Amino acid sequence: MARRKQIYEGKAKILFEGPEPGTLVQYFKDDATAFNNKKHGTITGKGVLNNRISEYLMTRLNEIGVPTHFIRRLNMREQLVRAVEIIPIEVVIRNVAAGSLSTKFAIPEGTQLPRSIVEYYFKNDELNDPMVSEEHITAFGWASVQELDEILSLSLRINDYLSGLFLGVQLRLVDFKLEFGRFYHEDEDVQIVLADEISPDNCRLWDVTSGDKLDKDRFRRDLGGVAEAYQEVARRLGILPEGGPRDIPGPRTMQ
Amino acid sequence: MARRKQIYEGKAKILFEGPEPGTLVQYFKDDATAFNNKKHGTITGKGVLNNRISEYLMTRLNEIGVPTHFIRRLNMREQLVRAVEIIPIEVVIRNVAAGSLSTKFAIPEGTQLPRSIVEYYFKNDELNDPMVSEEHITAFGWASVQELDEILSLSLRINDYLSGLFLGVQLRLVDFKLEFGRFYHEDEDVQIVLADEISPDNCRLWDVTSGDKLDKDRFRRDLGGVAEAYQEVARRLGILPEGGPRDIPGPRTMQ
Repeated sequence: MARRKQIYEGKAKILFEGPEPGTLVQYFKDDATAFNNKKHGTITGKGVLNNRISEYLMTRLNEIGVPTHFIRRLNMREQLVRAVEIIPIEVVIRNVAAGSLSTKFAIPEGTQLPRSIVEYYFKNDELNDPMVSEEHITAFGWASVQELDEILSLSLRINDYLSGLFLGVQLRLVDFKLEFGRFYHEDEDVQIVLADEISPDNCRLWDVTSGDKLDKDRFRRDLGGVAEAYQEVARRLGILPEGGPRDIPGPRTMQ
Repeated sequence: MARRKQIYEGKAKILFEGPEPGTLVQYFKDDATAFNNKKHGTITGKGVLNNRISEYLMTRLNEIGVPTHFIRRLNMREQLVRAVEIIPIEVVIRNVAAGSLSTKFAIPEGTQLPRSIVEYYFKNDELNDPMVSEEHITAFGWASVQELDEILSLSLRINDYLSGLFLGVQLRLVDFKLEFGRFYHEDEDVQIVLADEISPDNCRLWDVTSGDKLDKDRFRRDLGGVAEAYQEVARRLGILPEGGPRDIPGPRTMQ
């Protein structure tokens, strides 16, 4: 029995070769890191929840015409995705001041921004993921001007849709991070698609009434109740009918 | 005898009320600072040289149709400028990797960039002049989209012209910083004009053949020969015919 081929291991996920060419299996770990890997930990059941939450949100986005890499969920910790060439840019969309923006501009957390602000960070752990502008992205060839236009326009649509969806379940979408990739169609057409995941790992979600944080800031800032916050998000989205998720063991071998 | 009114004192210059409404007197000091004021020093004669160099470059730019705040030089350390509302953004135009860009992206100093890159920094000492993108500038209202378009297009013209002019005197314009302001015409028309100064204080200038630095990096990095480097730039531009500049005393009182 051959172990399936691991393509890439990130901080929170592992990518394996998929069952068909052009596909990958995305495995969600319970590992949590923060501050560019300086803080490590485990959030029990996080991988299971994020797999479900990301499945749900990517499916909804597909339905409104936002192309994503998501194909289907395979099991509790794995989903089948399209193999894409990841664009090395993290797109951060902010609606409310929090985190690094609050620090950088001395704006109190929770301040409503005059309008949504889109930021780009160069995905490079060694360089500490520096913030970059469109100038750097296009000059260094990380994405073309046309690709960046498409990424910006998709990001704004996703922000509008998710802001509404989360507000519907009494959550304020404060900010979130997206990643995009190039999907090469068989006719050589190249399409920009949403990749990675959307989950409380990369969204700031605050309860509309209490302001409680239901996201990874609970881990970053040692607020406790981390797993419970992820479960609450899943529960509100209607994808966790009752009880908690049962866990399954680590990465398995392919049949 | 009344002392004239001081409007603003910066690290390298003082602004006084001008002789007519809508004008200011810009006085050039010998003070030098670096690393957001952490390093202090004096470069003897710098103020005199920067006054002459900035006069020369602003005059040339005015001639090619780039509007500036410069009216005329008054004496060795002072020039008359239009009073403008400074836009709180430092525009950095880079042709060759150096300084913070080299550090941030681990690109060796001296690497030719794939194309000129324009960066924006929020002018705010307390916040350490953070790099910002067009998104922050327009969202926080530091400049409108139209103003920023005008600033970018003027910056690129200035870069083309100055790159050629400096190359003509065997200097490589590696990068430089510009500031812009709003000039309110009497008919209430608002015009974006180049403000501040252009000098070896805010340009990186390398000798084409030897690579020698003829700019403030000699001060920042304790390379010695700082005043001589500024004199050499003035000499090459043909505005320092012989000997060094004679100094004049500090700010004087108005008649």
